[in-house]
Amino acid sequence: MADLISSTDRSPRADEKAGMRERRRRGRGRNRASADIVRPERKVDYRRLVNSFEPVRVYSDDRIAAIHDMALKVLEELGMRLLLPEALDLLRTRARDDVSIDDDARHCRFGRDLVAEAIATAPAGWTLHGGTPETSTVWGGRHVVWCAVGGAPHISDLDGGKRPGTMEDSRNIMRLCEHYDVMHVQGPNVEAQDIDTAFRHLEVTRAQLVLSTKPPFVYCRGKGQVADGMEMVRIARGLSEEAFRAAPHVYTVINTNSPLVLDRPMLQGIMDFAEHGQPILLTPFTLSGAMAPVTIPGALVQQHAEFLAGLVISQLTRPGAPVCYGCFTSNVAMRSGAPAFGTPENVRAAFASGQLARLVGVPWRSSGSCTANCVDAQAVYETQMALWGATLGGANFVAHAAGWMEGGLTGSMEKFIVDIEMLQQMAELMQPVAFDEDDLAFEAMRDVGSGGHFFGTQHTMERYETAFYEPFLSDWSNFNQWTENGAVQTPERANAIWKQVLRDFEPPALDESAREALDDFVARRTAEGGAPPLT
Amino acid sequence: MADLISSTDRSPRADEKAGMRERRRRGRGRNRASADIVRPERKVDYRRLVNSFEPVRVYSDDRIAAIHDMALKVLEELGMRLLLPEALDLLRTRARDDVSIDDDARHCRFGRDLVAEAIATAPAGWTLHGGTPETSTVWGGRHVVWCAVGGAPHISDLDGGKRPGTMEDSRNIMRLCEHYDVMHVQGPNVEAQDIDTAFRHLEVTRAQLVLSTKPPFVYCRGKGQVADGMEMVRIARGLSEEAFRAAPHVYTVINTNSPLVLDRPMLQGIMDFAEHGQPILLTPFTLSGAMAPVTIPGALVQQHAEFLAGLVISQLTRPGAPVCYGCFTSNVAMRSGAPAFGTPENVRAAFASGQLARLVGVPWRSSGSCTANCVDAQAVYETQMALWGATLGGANFVAHAAGWMEGGLTGSMEKFIVDIEMLQQMAELMQPVAFDEDDLAFEAMRDVGSGGHFFGTQHTMERYETAFYEPFLSDWSNFNQWTENGAVQTPERANAIWKQVLRDFEPPALDESAREALDDFVARRTAEGGAPPLT
Repeated sequence: MADLISSTDRSPRADEKAGMRERRRRGRGRNRASADIVRPERKVDYRRLVNSFEPVRVYSDDRIAAIHDMALKVLEELGMRLLLPEALDLLRTRARDDVSIDDDARHCRFGRDLVAEAIATAPAGWTLHGGTPETSTVWGGRHVVWCAVGGAPHISDLDGGKRPGTMEDSRNIMRLCEHYDVMHVQGPNVEAQDIDTAFRHLEVTRAQLVLSTKPPFVYCRGKGQVADGMEMVRIARGLSEEAFRAAPHVYTVINTNSPLVLDRPMLQGIMDFAEHGQPILLTPFTLSGAMAPVTIPGALVQQHAEFLAGLVISQLTRPGAPVCYGCFTSNVAMRSGAPAFGTPENVRAAFASGQLARLVGVPWRSSGSCTANCVDAQAVYETQMALWGATLGGANFVAHAAGWMEGGLTGSMEKFIVDIEMLQQMAELMQPVAFDEDDLAFEAMRDVGSGGHFFGTQHTMERYETAFYEPFLSDWSNFNQWTENGAVQTPERANAIWKQVLRDFEPPALDESAREALDDFVARRTAEGGAPPLT
Repeated sequence: MADLISSTDRSPRADEKAGMRERRRRGRGRNRASADIVRPERKVDYRRLVNSFEPVRVYSDDRIAAIHDMALKVLEELGMRLLLPEALDLLRTRARDDVSIDDDARHCRFGRDLVAEAIATAPAGWTLHGGTPETSTVWGGRHVVWCAVGGAPHISDLDGGKRPGTMEDSRNIMRLCEHYDVMHVQGPNVEAQDIDTAFRHLEVTRAQLVLSTKPPFVYCRGKGQVADGMEMVRIARGLSEEAFRAAPHVYTVINTNSPLVLDRPMLQGIMDFAEHGQPILLTPFTLSGAMAPVTIPGALVQQHAEFLAGLVISQLTRPGAPVCYGCFTSNVAMRSGAPAFGTPENVRAAFASGQLARLVGVPWRSSGSCTANCVDAQAVYETQMALWGATLGGANFVAHAAGWMEGGLTGSMEKFIVDIEMLQQMAELMQPVAFDEDDLAFEAMRDVGSGGHFFGTQHTMERYETAFYEPFLSDWSNFNQWTENGAVQTPERANAIWKQVLRDFEPPALDESAREALDDFVARRTAEGGAPPLT
């Protein structure tokens, strides 16, 4: 597991120290009136999150090793169907002795040494660059990157209900992602179904680059779409082909077709992204009981095997290509076969997947997800389960962390806001905590004495503005006030908030010539017929 | 920290092993048709929960030691106001050289040796007995005990809205607690405001003993009420005074009057419960920024000092008396001064309190709590935060875990059901997980092959009925089905569920003579004027 984090990346510890210095510096400025008080501010930089918690483990190390070993056996004895001939050619050419290929069946078995070599060259982390240094994201170690709902065909809000997603819906979610610091990258959000699939990628990528400086996402729907997407990122960022290939600037998701299949667009995507040195979230679609064994350890074996197969193809294409370990293992409802998310099994699989990713030595991606059909108690308890599995499991990347509903079929505007509130609270929780002599507050207790209160003390007054996280969505008024104010429930408050954010939204500055070049590119490629998706 | 767990108590590991044996045994019976298959069932005994997770830590061990040390300094230099003269007499008599008492101020400073002695005699755990062996609960180690909302003056449901609690509301919550296995004890639930405070304890205690075999709760509202409550437990359980004193049969909550005060009923309660060998949840009321310092470490120092003061009084009364470390540290909203629950600060304080309780070597009590005014998204994300703080922090007892609303001012019937669903999911998550060769499912993957599905395989068919937790409240139907079924949201579903449970409720068997003796006792004490609360 080579460490390819560039010199601009800092260890969690270095980050923490720098943050403390910065907070102290800012604290000094604000408290000029009381010159002897230098307080670290609690104020959190949500753009750069470092998780201070040790990851929770659900299996012992020997059980994790047993899952890894069984996955190697699966690759060795059962193998994978690989539907793209070019992928089989790559394996034949570069791993001759370590693979056993059946071209008619498009099937390949993988030797253990080959997997070990891929693990050895896979980087432990990297920086995915945005349009500005502030929006660049660090993947790996204790760093945390959050992303909104991805791939939902529908959109919903309290006003319009559920309906097919449009380009404008997709733009609105991009605007929310640009607005909130806990959204660290742009993502596939909802499908712009009002745009033909040959041109959709052009419009969506342009919108990401125009409305946001956060790192963009491009789908792997064939070589043409990927090439278009990468070219647009180069244009917007003003990068040469060489500079683009030298560092991550755009990312994608690769899903296996579980069990034990990788289809043509996904294999093409692994190879295209590896060739350009751009990161992939390599995520088996292992729903336990349907596309994977009904036991969680069995589903994890299959997830791990499918991940390792993709990793091999990536590393054979370009050793050192950035690959993030994706987990999506959850269970189905055994009565109906419907997928379920935010379940106890889902949390357990998440904790275990974090352990497996750390065994391999690559960053780990988990998900915030739920099965619920509306933004009610169920939606939140399912999402919280998933979010805690990701947070205390130590996930480096959390997909679908804002706005996901109905097992991913719908992006909800109100759910998005609820999730942002929950994410900010998680961000607060994972901060390193201040702890000095003053924090232990002996003098404050002496000042107040038995039976007093701390509201007006100097110790409190120096800190009360920044002592605690203040939620933007929660209503902490008492029952009478709340009733007098109309007994407004959380979704209705969220509805007012996202509308306000969209009303106030101003896109970030973009170089005029870059903007024109982007528009020219889209116009030209549209005139050329775009790029129909590979199936 | 003496280990007073009786020989009937088992270590978590022993429990786990016994549970596995039991599951295997039952599994054998059920699968008689396929004689070679011996599957451990996933079915969880919610009555006996053992948390399989290592507790999450928020501070390093040296910081926890620093909090402990500062708390000793607080007790030594600042001391506590103790408003009951008998408590000061106890300290003077039994800890002469180690205390400094000011009788006029009703104030006491505590030497470090005295605190160390109390820590040394406090038990690490115990069994709190119910009316049957099945309803007895183990406190300490990795054992988990959950309790419903306590002390709420109001009740609410979707039909009747919010209103003052009555005896029948209190009985209804007792019925729900008896019904659900994840409710391990009876608790103070809502106040029966339709009964005069001189008689309320008689009616409430009788109802607990008649409607439930789970361990009962008695408030510390003066010596008379406590004596009545304990006598009623002895009557219902058929215990001599000596047998009652020999093991825990009833518990209570002791709250300090933060900062640094213990009032008369609370001190009397500590002494009464210790004298009878019955457990207390000793819980400082340290809301950071109001009754405790605005810093979480400072609030924890004060919490810890107040706990240790109570522990000293308990252990001086009777060395080895069972005392559970209670934490309630959360923050206030600094704009309004209103208490807030389920906040990031609340979770951090919970994790730290678990560490402090383990340092002392006694069981730890945390809370499920929220600030919300209705059973919406906010209520659930706040409660989930508190619940995860308790669960992954390793809490042995979680108060207010079902039905708590509005910072504890209201018990909600629908919230109760939502919380039960969340608790069952937590119970599932904390189970030890099956992991054998079959679970790794290599043969199942071979059977299914690339691109198949697992629905009909033998591996799935053998397990599908018990593989996954099945929620009773969540609606996992798809959006169209859900809409056709009336788009029923979670609180409405919960409303139907609690009504059904109450309709079907049958009280457990109670010996007729015990029932008559209980009724006679209540009649006699009522005729005598009951026991007005000590203030």
